[in-house]
Amino acid sequence: MTKEITSSSNPLIKKLRALITTKKNRQESGRFIVEGWRGIKTLLEHDSPFYELEQIVVSNGWNGGTLPPHIETIKVPDHVFDKISDVRNAQGILGVVRKKAAPSRLPETGKFLLLDNLRDPGNLGTLIRSAVGSGFDGVLLYGDCVEPENPKVIRSTMGTFAFCPVWPISRDELSQGLENGYELCVTTGLGGENLYDAQFGAKTLLVIGSEAHGVSDELFQRAAKKITIPLQPACESLNAAIAGSICMFQIARG
Amino acid sequence: MTKEITSSSNPLIKKLRALITTKKNRQESGRFIVEGWRGIKTLLEHDSPFYELEQIVVSNGWNGGTLPPHIETIKVPDHVFDKISDVRNAQGILGVVRKKAAPSRLPETGKFLLLDNLRDPGNLGTLIRSAVGSGFDGVLLYGDCVEPENPKVIRSTMGTFAFCPVWPISRDELSQGLENGYELCVTTGLGGENLYDAQFGAKTLLVIGSEAHGVSDELFQRAAKKITIPLQPACESLNAAIAGSICMFQIARG
Repeated sequence: MTKEITSSSNPLIKKLRALITTKKNRQESGRFIVEGWRGIKTLLEHDSPFYELEQIVVSNGWNGGTLPPHIETIKVPDHVFDKISDVRNAQGILGVVRKKAAPSRLPETGKFLLLDNLRDPGNLGTLIRSAVGSGFDGVLLYGDCVEPENPKVIRSTMGTFAFCPVWPISRDELSQGLENGYELCVTTGLGGENLYDAQFGAKTLLVIGSEAHGVSDELFQRAAKKITIPLQPACESLNAAIAGSICMFQIARG
Repeated sequence: MTKEITSSSNPLIKKLRALITTKKNRQESGRFIVEGWRGIKTLLEHDSPFYELEQIVVSNGWNGGTLPPHIETIKVPDHVFDKISDVRNAQGILGVVRKKAAPSRLPETGKFLLLDNLRDPGNLGTLIRSAVGSGFDGVLLYGDCVEPENPKVIRSTMGTFAFCPVWPISRDELSQGLENGYELCVTTGLGGENLYDAQFGAKTLLVIGSEAHGVSDELFQRAAKKITIPLQPACESLNAAIAGSICMFQIARG
């Protein structure tokens, strides 16, 4: 199933471009774009419970992996591809991904990263990658976080988005989780329990705060556990993605 | 010592802009720009062995911390400040920093991060921040790494650049370090010693490879120790800054 499109004013090309540039468009359609071979290969080789690859778009210059016959492939000239893509020196391949049903509530047990108004797409993508690498069970978005289908987020996950449930959690859903025995853990620069001495249970919510403001007062107050990554005095704090990853790898080991 | 400049065509304004935009200019002058209050505050409050704050530039809109009388301060209108600055929504303050003598050889002992053709300024800045936080002794640049005085690198360090020696190391200097007992450690995705089981000595060089190509064949061959961060199978590798930070924090503890 290959078709060719040669004009950048073709309605499908405009629709694809809109999926890259506009959050509203992604949300209304329930679809987003994955750019580059790694993400597409991941979706081709693994059955993701959360996402389905619907279409592939390749430029004339694409000479990478073999494309499967069962997924519709659209060939476009390089200049049309560049109109769609968000990436400089793009590899000449991108995919349209449909969101399947996302989880909507916390399971009985698990270790989850809870992001508190995290704004930077690179940080979210990197944290998803580390969550999958460490064995965390998913990522929860609290407050006004960056949209997880933003193209920069997807790129930064390096294909791991396919394996990581990411969904928003409301204040009420969080309260319910805590009533069901989840322990809310925040990181704090000073005075918390040393990360390397702390014990973590099978129901853990690790909070990482926003890049600019850290953990919100509300979540800080509600946290049953406060942990500190021991730092040399010349360094006040770590980057949000680094702090989150160090904690996830330590918590997942325990 | 405050002076005012109102024209963006003033030669000093052009010189400052060139320090932000042009690597050649930074290298020839031995100076670079630190943007934002945090970096400037760090240099004011601590005596950095590596860097000296020479000048401060503030916009009319600056209403942050009090500026010291012993450092020349230049006041400029907001529109002139925006011409110099590289940052959207800049805080209205930046500083000119002079490099003092940088280290040129490895000391008798220490734990150093050795970056192998690392290209991304955000990754370098974040790794410098983590190196300082973990207690690593410095960062060595091998091959064609991003320039450490690049404004994005400096910003990502969040002021910690003041405490971290960063310098290029040649192949010969590396050989000499290894002859003097330094152990070269590389990370590898599969088959290395588990990071959490490995022992590290007082003379350690931790190699982190480039974002696109990983560790070069040359350094991989020369490494006496190969370590692996245990990852879930769905995640092939971590972001370079994350992998480096996780290893540094673990090695610094040992």
